[in-house]
Amino acid sequence: MRAAVMRNGALVIDDIDDPRPGAGQVLVQTLACGICGSDLHALQHGDQLVEMSSESAGFASNDMPPMEVMDLQRDVVMGHEFCGEVVELGEGTANCTVGDVVVSVPMTFDLAGLHPIGYSNVYPGGYGEQLVLSDMLALKVPNGLAPPLAALTEPMAVGLHAVNRSSLAAGHAAIVLGCGPVGLATISALRLRGVEPIIAADFSPTRRDLAMTMGAHEATDPREEPAVDVWSRLGAPTPAAIFEAVGVPGLLEEALKAAPRQSEIVVVGACMEPDTFRPMRGVVKELEIKFAFGYDPMEFAETLRRIAEGEVDVAPLVTSRVGLDGVPQAFADLATPDDQAKILVQPD
Amino acid sequence: MRAAVMRNGALVIDDIDDPRPGAGQVLVQTLACGICGSDLHALQHGDQLVEMSSESAGFASNDMPPMEVMDLQRDVVMGHEFCGEVVELGEGTANCTVGDVVVSVPMTFDLAGLHPIGYSNVYPGGYGEQLVLSDMLALKVPNGLAPPLAALTEPMAVGLHAVNRSSLAAGHAAIVLGCGPVGLATISALRLRGVEPIIAADFSPTRRDLAMTMGAHEATDPREEPAVDVWSRLGAPTPAAIFEAVGVPGLLEEALKAAPRQSEIVVVGACMEPDTFRPMRGVVKELEIKFAFGYDPMEFAETLRRIAEGEVDVAPLVTSRVGLDGVPQAFADLATPDDQAKILVQPD
Repeated sequence: MRAAVMRNGALVIDDIDDPRPGAGQVLVQTLACGICGSDLHALQHGDQLVEMSSESAGFASNDMPPMEVMDLQRDVVMGHEFCGEVVELGEGTANCTVGDVVVSVPMTFDLAGLHPIGYSNVYPGGYGEQLVLSDMLALKVPNGLAPPLAALTEPMAVGLHAVNRSSLAAGHAAIVLGCGPVGLATISALRLRGVEPIIAADFSPTRRDLAMTMGAHEATDPREEPAVDVWSRLGAPTPAAIFEAVGVPGLLEEALKAAPRQSEIVVVGACMEPDTFRPMRGVVKELEIKFAFGYDPMEFAETLRRIAEGEVDVAPLVTSRVGLDGVPQAFADLATPDDQAKILVQPD
Repeated sequence: MRAAVMRNGALVIDDIDDPRPGAGQVLVQTLACGICGSDLHALQHGDQLVEMSSESAGFASNDMPPMEVMDLQRDVVMGHEFCGEVVELGEGTANCTVGDVVVSVPMTFDLAGLHPIGYSNVYPGGYGEQLVLSDMLALKVPNGLAPPLAALTEPMAVGLHAVNRSSLAAGHAAIVLGCGPVGLATISALRLRGVEPIIAADFSPTRRDLAMTMGAHEATDPREEPAVDVWSRLGAPTPAAIFEAVGVPGLLEEALKAAPRQSEIVVVGACMEPDTFRPMRGVVKELEIKFAFGYDPMEFAETLRRIAEGEVDVAPLVTSRVGLDGVPQAFADLATPDDQAKILVQPD
């Protein structure tokens, strides 16, 4: 099949072996797959990602089967925000039927253990024409929801999980630093939780507009009015949470500096590089930093339900669509993403 | 009165004006006062402490009276771990009687607002012969507890608060990095909570012995066996919390690296300098960093009760005693504190 392959730190379009569904797995034709900021990080800082995944995988060994850690010397087809149509059933499947349109948490397992779809040498992700999923993990897309919108389940679930990591309830105030897809997903989940006000900050006017569309009450250019000043101006209640959804060095220090006393900072932007801050800032205000990563299967399913039932309109998030050939250029475009939110890859 | 005064970044022994109790305050003769690591920090990094206290004080302004932030250009008598005898009552007092032996949270208030005793230009701390306390905040020392041991209420309360900040319950496992007074207080509070195992780490054999005395189940030299390896060797249960009770740059990164997946790191060591770490370490394992600062009045009172009723024996923590003249040398000794835990100042 054709795929956009990560090979020697670059993306190339190539023909690779067709994936085959094993026992308990299904073969899926990729209909749409979002490009995630983590994939840009992986292309640039793959070694660091592998190092930290290995550390992390070691600690999990008492609880679950071994997790594959990709080898960057070998091909990887990324893409973990996918929606596809089931085209073939492996042995012993009981959930999917050929023709089903499905999404799945980007994880499959076989006798060798767990594999992260999209960061695996064994299981290609959605930047290829076909995927292999675990039959039991696939969720049928309900209500005739369009596959490109269903593909947004994954990034939107990241926002729901980040909000679930916080202790925010209805009527609390929140600040979201950064209005890329992760920040926007967080805003949407905050709005559904009844958090008010939701104060968003981003340098890009396009992204600030999207923040308002997704449910922010105010969207500020931090060069003109920092988010915490908006918070003070609105007389917003404490406790507040600050979501760090940018993931570049220096942002955590900004968040610590801006945070009201005894508030919490949820780090949902993935900063791969070393970052510097003054812990004493956290100490004197008794702050809490919670790192958020991914989501659990219930949050993923709940997010699909919310989108399919129209509680969240994700259509505005899709700012661009490309075929497989357009993937390398899309990655380049997302390096300066001021006018982009989600770029969808549609292999056909 | 005589006092060890912080003046121009140095400690000098000098005669200063006697403090006078105002309305609602009592005058107290200092019987004992512990030297705290924070005081060493304040002497070395006073500017940073003032800067961050100012930032923090600003945020509190909606909730409480203004908090004095000390001016380092003027004299400060430090010492906030004190026990003393009431020698004079101000107007309108209703709690204390002359002759009472008391401790207090190191905070007093007057019409100008709140003042941190020991970090104030107005209210001298326990490195002087006399103190002024708020009558309503003073707690009588029960059961004939010796004043030098009652003075340990304050640092021990820091440990109780750190444990209360965590979500640990009986049967959970904990790691304590650093066995200075804060680490030892934390170990003691963990033991009373029923946490098991408590794994302590310190380079100093003296401090490791103290860790075992205060309730650790294992005390390791991290150069020989890192604490997390002990945790694995013991097959200790998760979730675990790691208490960072050292407060030097690099320790938080060590804690993040060592932390089991989904555990929490309670930062109770006060690192004033900028620190560098890789946030991605926190992200991939979904860690939580909770900064702990001080204690609340209930935790302070509960700690006094525990000591006075013999639930905690704090006597082993006192490794040295000095008069006022010995304070500058004691600060110098604590810069390389391998054989010290708590040094008590006894002004008489």
